[in-house]
Amino acid sequence: MRIKLINPNTTVRMTEAMGRCAREVVAPGTELIAVSPSMGPPSIEGYYDEALATPGLLAEIAAGEREGCDGYVIACFGDPGLYAARELARGPVIGIAEAAMHAASVLAPGFSVVTTLSRTCGMAWHLAERYGMTRFCRNVRATDVAVLELDQPGSAARRIILDECRRALEEDGSDAIVLGCAGMAELCAEIEDALGAPVVEGVTAAVKWVEALVTLRLATAKRGDYARPLAKRYDGALEAFSPTEANPNPMPPRVSRAGRM
Amino acid sequence: MRIKLINPNTTVRMTEAMGRCAREVVAPGTELIAVSPSMGPPSIEGYYDEALATPGLLAEIAAGEREGCDGYVIACFGDPGLYAARELARGPVIGIAEAAMHAASVLAPGFSVVTTLSRTCGMAWHLAERYGMTRFCRNVRATDVAVLELDQPGSAARRIILDECRRALEEDGSDAIVLGCAGMAELCAEIEDALGAPVVEGVTAAVKWVEALVTLRLATAKRGDYARPLAKRYDGALEAFSPTEANPNPMPPRVSRAGRM
Amino acid sequence: MRIKLINPNTTVRMTEAMGRCAREVVAPGTELIAVSPSMGPPSIEGYYDEALATPGLLAEIAAGEREGCDGYVIACFGDPGLYAARELARGPVIGIAEAAMHAASVLAPGFSVVTTLSRTCGMAWHLAERYGMTRFCRNVRATDVAVLELDQPGSAARRIILDECRRALEEDGSDAIVLGCAGMAELCAEIEDALGAPVVEGVTAAVKWVEALVTLRLATAKRGDYARPLAKRYDGALEAFSPTEANPNPMPPRVSRAGRM
Amino acid sequence: MRIKLINPNTTVRMTEAMGRCAREVVAPGTELIAVSPSMGPPSIEGYYDEALATPGLLAEIAAGEREGCDGYVIACFGDPGLYAARELARGPVIGIAEAAMHAASVLAPGFSVVTTLSRTCGMAWHLAERYGMTRFCRNVRATDVAVLELDQPGSAARRIILDECRRALEEDGSDAIVLGCAGMAELCAEIEDALGAPVVEGVTAAVKWVEALVTLRLATAKRGDYARPLAKRYDGALEAFSPTEANPNPMPPRVSRAGRM
Amino acid sequence: MRIKLINPNTTVRMTEAMGRCAREVVAPGTELIAVSPSMGPPSIEGYYDEALATPGLLAEIAAGEREGCDGYVIACFGDPGLYAARELARGPVIGIAEAAMHAASVLAPGFSVVTTLSRTCGMAWHLAERYGMTRFCRNVRATDVAVLELDQPGSAARRIILDECRRALEEDGSDAIVLGCAGMAELCAEIEDALGAPVVEGVTAAVKWVEALVTLRLATAKRGDYARPLAKRYDGALEAFSPTEANPNPMPPRVSRAGRM
Amino acid sequence: MRIKLINPNTTVRMTEAMGRCAREVVAPGTELIAVSPSMGPPSIEGYYDEALATPGLLAEIAAGEREGCDGYVIACFGDPGLYAARELARGPVIGIAEAAMHAASVLAPGFSVVTTLSRTCGMAWHLAERYGMTRFCRNVRATDVAVLELDQPGSAARRIILDECRRALEEDGSDAIVLGCAGMAELCAEIEDALGAPVVEGVTAAVKWVEALVTLRLATAKRGDYARPLAKRYDGALEAFSPTEANPNPMPPRVSRAGRM
Repeated sequence: MRIKLINPNTTVRMTEAMGRCAREVVAPGTELIAVSPSMGPPSIEGYYDEALATPGLLAEIAAGEREGCDGYVIACFGDPGLYAARELARGPVIGIAEAAMHAASVLAPGFSVVTTLSRTCGMAWHLAERYGMTRFCRNVRATDVAVLELDQPGSAARRIILDECRRALEEDGSDAIVLGCAGMAELCAEIEDALGAPVVEGVTAAVKWVEALVTLRLATAKRGDYARPLAKRYDGALEAFSPTEANPNPMPPRVSRAGRM
Repeated sequence: MRIKLINPNTTVRMTEAMGRCAREVVAPGTELIAVSPSMGPPSIEGYYDEALATPGLLAEIAAGEREGCDGYVIACFGDPGLYAARELARGPVIGIAEAAMHAASVLAPGFSVVTTLSRTCGMAWHLAERYGMTRFCRNVRATDVAVLELDQPGSAARRIILDECRRALEEDGSDAIVLGCAGMAELCAEIEDALGAPVVEGVTAAVKWVEALVTLRLATAKRGDYARPLAKRYDGALEAFSPTEANPNPMPPRVSRAGRM
Repeated sequence: MRIKLINPNTTVRMTEAMGRCAREVVAPGTELIAVSPSMGPPSIEGYYDEALATPGLLAEIAAGEREGCDGYVIACFGDPGLYAARELARGPVIGIAEAAMHAASVLAPGFSVVTTLSRTCGMAWHLAERYGMTRFCRNVRATDVAVLELDQPGSAARRIILDECRRALEEDGSDAIVLGCAGMAELCAEIEDALGAPVVEGVTAAVKWVEALVTLRLATAKRGDYARPLAKRYDGALEAFSPTEANPNPMPPRVSRAGRM
Repeated sequence: MRIKLINPNTTVRMTEAMGRCAREVVAPGTELIAVSPSMGPPSIEGYYDEALATPGLLAEIAAGEREGCDGYVIACFGDPGLYAARELARGPVIGIAEAAMHAASVLAPGFSVVTTLSRTCGMAWHLAERYGMTRFCRNVRATDVAVLELDQPGSAARRIILDECRRALEEDGSDAIVLGCAGMAELCAEIEDALGAPVVEGVTAAVKWVEALVTLRLATAKRGDYARPLAKRYDGALEAFSPTEANPNPMPPRVSRAGRM
Repeated sequence: MRIKLINPNTTVRMTEAMGRCAREVVAPGTELIAVSPSMGPPSIEGYYDEALATPGLLAEIAAGEREGCDGYVIACFGDPGLYAARELARGPVIGIAEAAMHAASVLAPGFSVVTTLSRTCGMAWHLAERYGMTRFCRNVRATDVAVLELDQPGSAARRIILDECRRALEEDGSDAIVLGCAGMAELCAEIEDALGAPVVEGVTAAVKWVEALVTLRLATAKRGDYARPLAKRYDGALEAFSPTEANPNPMPPRVSRAGRM
Repeated sequence: MRIKLINPNTTVRMTEAMGRCAREVVAPGTELIAVSPSMGPPSIEGYYDEALATPGLLAEIAAGEREGCDGYVIACFGDPGLYAARELARGPVIGIAEAAMHAASVLAPGFSVVTTLSRTCGMAWHLAERYGMTRFCRNVRATDVAVLELDQPGSAARRIILDECRRALEEDGSDAIVLGCAGMAELCAEIEDALGAPVVEGVTAAVKWVEALVTLRLATAKRGDYARPLAKRYDGALEAFSPTEANPNPMPPRVSRAGRM
């Protein structure tokens, strides 16, 4: 099976780290492709960043359909473009916030999300509600560590995040932690060891859930809201994204280069 | 005051119709600008269409900020890009679904939304929930009339919509109707007359609410989730959208032409 | 157009202040009438006060119908008698808590209400729920300033309220403030300036929203719950309130005097 | 112990019927007083009727406090003035909709309310929500029988109500019925026998619950929202209702006569 | 009438104390039987304890049906086996958490539960939700007093509980207390006196509510979810629990001895 | 890894069928053990059946802990004993309703549950709520096929279930089906083929999700509600279930025989 993990921001260093984490957990027969779009923001820290990350993400989904991918992971904790991606994809598409929250909800009575910037806490609450997870999500906590600092050698990020996780367990009545940023994937084991409570990281949780669903031959419903986009011709600079009868997986001609759009 | 009404699809004929409706209701001192982006889908009938309409919409918000606009209306019933637009704008930004649902909730104990395609019903329910309107929204009904048929002379669209509105009052326990598509704006008075119950159309409802808030000097909160996008350099084809310190209202150089992006 | 603003308590000084605030914001062609009932409590600080303020309020709505009013504002933060008033009125009727909460919900991801007495906090939460605003209302905070102290020269009320607003932004994760008492209308601009965040005051918010709805020819639904009261003869001291066929707008003979009932 | 059952409408025939039902079920030592106010509507069929029934109801509560009543039942399915009554009363105050819904919720997984006029269905839903009973309330069904027809000899009311109860069990997935009008109290046993499912009638349910709470020495909380009304002088025709320090149980001098107010 | 109070744990000392409390409040004609099962945990402090307390509890319900009991109280704050018990019983079955929360909700705008161990707080929240009481339940507070310490002479349990009740009133915005353990029944009056706010204890609240419902001839719905268990033969050690046509009240032969199962 | 699938009823034929389904989907290194308890009901069709199935289920979990199982699946759609099982287990424990609903929620905007008996529909709704899945669960439909008829050759069960699935898609606005009984596991592929929409079956969905979580080294939180049962000595026939310090995995001596308890 072929699973495509899409980091919707353009920071390849993060994409590679996620790919490493994911490849450690997939089953022998699973091919894991980790990519970033060639256009869009280098980090996603608000609704505007999300909106501009989405075209690149969707281009990668469309490419994945042409390349025979069986399922997709959207590897940014805001799960940008999730429903639009489901319109394009035949197989399952899961966001990392979605996967992490669902997993935490079967491991503990309640969890806290520990994320990066305060301005993204509202986004996490929106997701918790969209997925029915508000009854499990006891708090969303920001560390005000910037996404791109997470893997800087020598940064205080790890300690700050661990401290916030400890406070979450003590003050929120939570029994598990959800890491609220794809950039924290590599910190997961270390934090869990130090904390003695389940720490759920969405990249691997999503990859394994997609793998499970594909094994079960379960796919995205193609009736209703997630039916394929209606054929129409888009205007202007986005014409290459037009979903047409002839081209059911719309995408600009040069996928793998910076100027693809 | 200057209010910018943005039809996020590229069908100028619809934009002009909305502009006519809006200009009929604004106060004497209000300048109403009605625009469509130069790029993106000609109609919005799903999540994929929405995602690809959003960059063009945001370009128009950014342009509006440079042009001194005091408030904005997003004139598509899915309210695409609403939160991202609020990050860019100083003044209020209101979606037409948002305005119509809020207005209906103060006029009647319950309303039904009558919209175009079945596949967009889920989107309307998502919005009702996001705005706290599920307690008022008794049903969302599709007519399966395509958006671009609405103003075709000789189409059966008007009769089909009116019939669905009648059924809504009879079967849903609703006492008012919300029209679920910006393209229905010009039908509103006609339907209301035939129906004898309040029929709320979002384009004018949103324009008047923005006008009211601007008069009250109320603006979008610039703390928290709706703070301005953080400065960063976007990659590839979307570089022109980068929010930078130097350019607080990011936008590609040639706004009013097809190749703007 | 003629809008009637009804302060449901009998303190004329407050009514006049509200009238001043409202007249500053209405459009040129709008006549704004601000009245108090001649009977009932001088301030509304609990459910009992509310219940006894309602007959006088309804008498003013009935009078307004005879006088050709196009819409109404109920200018007490508990929105007393709102649904009963909608049964009498043809045009829109909006409460100031309703208007302020709805407005705040389109300007900020979350707001706090800052009100007077602790014993009224529960009333504000009831309203937030009734209007679908609990997802936006992050907290209701009492200052324990009495309603009638608000405009006393030399009182500490202003400082106390401003301090509470500051705490709300810091502690509640709110990005906007809703002032929870009609008596705070004149403090609004001052607090907003000091705070640097949207401060929504319901009197003007409600007046402008009613004005907008009337401009759009939208009125209260006269099917269902808000249909006119059924004709019947009331007993005893309240006979003058009887809704009869002959007298669709029931009201005691002498409206403008103390002994009107 | 002394329990006061207050029918908030002025139709003494109904009050007497409720008194009969209640006296059949109280414990030996319980004195049951059944009264109607001397002023207000003869039946309550909407929000306006409710608002005008409330002053008379509150006068009876205040009189009850002077007369040493230990608890109160508000015997109209809309539970008008419930929270205001709790401010006046030391002992428990329970509405009949409240008692019936709570009782039904411990007897069956779900119930349907069968009431009189369609226009009151919204009121019943509001109450279900206020009491946390929406998860049990599967439907509210109107029979469009007028309140005052219920006990007319020869009326079709009984048959119509029984038929609606049968449909409720069949179509709503409900396993119990709540009778949605105080005027149906005497029909309860007959309907239950015909139906073979629990039929809960609020007058007796409320009387027994108040009796139980008084036996347990449980009373209304006098902190917070239900604290006694603050002392102040009301204006005009309602002056006699003023809650003053000297007169903690405000009420006009002549209680038992038509001109009491 | 005969009411059976079942303490689902096997600690007879607690059962006797509950019996004393209950007998003080029942009406003259009411026979109150207080029992413990002969098998299961001596205290219930988690889901595992609950699950193993349930067979013994159900044996007592089945025995009660054979003995002509008219109603039942499940006297453990987790209300274990409540729905299963309703399948067996003809009369009403009420849990003490259920009774206490419902009662508190008609006496105060909000209450706090004060319970024993932290690990049971989640269970109390589950119950609040199941009964529709989350809108009234402001907090669940653990004292970390063990159930079996509650009636130890010289233990600090009383003081600790009273202190927690005080904090609940001050910090939670609650106006009443629900005692969250059957073992606290005898402390109720003492705490209420010290606190000056309603303190609801479930054992007596449930007994009186069952008594009220039985007086009203109200019984458990025997349609739908609470219909009698389907006849079938259980396997192994639990065969004696088989619900069969011949034996509608399944139970092992020797009820009142330790080896009954 | 070793996963234990526990069919909480005693019908070994069903257990074997589930084992076959599960073994087809597990990864090469996964050992799948499928067992039934030796005591309890042969099918679970109500709350009483559930309560009596739980001791046997918990005995199997305790045995699993001694046998080094890494995770567990509770293979009855009511997910009986789930939280109690989590107290015993170190690894993840997932119910099949839980797994199926979560999976369906990431594949389709809404699903319908198609189950066996009407009397179990309420149980399915309770689960949907407990897991936060009510926003996705559009309906629960009973076929009134008995559990043990499902695999009878020549029974009409398959056709009846397929017809109900078709109606669910047409009438409920659902885009996917959740099969509401472990006994339907072998029908899943056949129904999905006939239906052309995702059909989720909980046995395999749960097995794969447990397998995924174990691969990720995620386990049940051992703080808070799911901490191990407190050590205490149970009385009477259930003494062997006592959780003691010496015996952290309580269980009667002879597991694999009928008289084990």
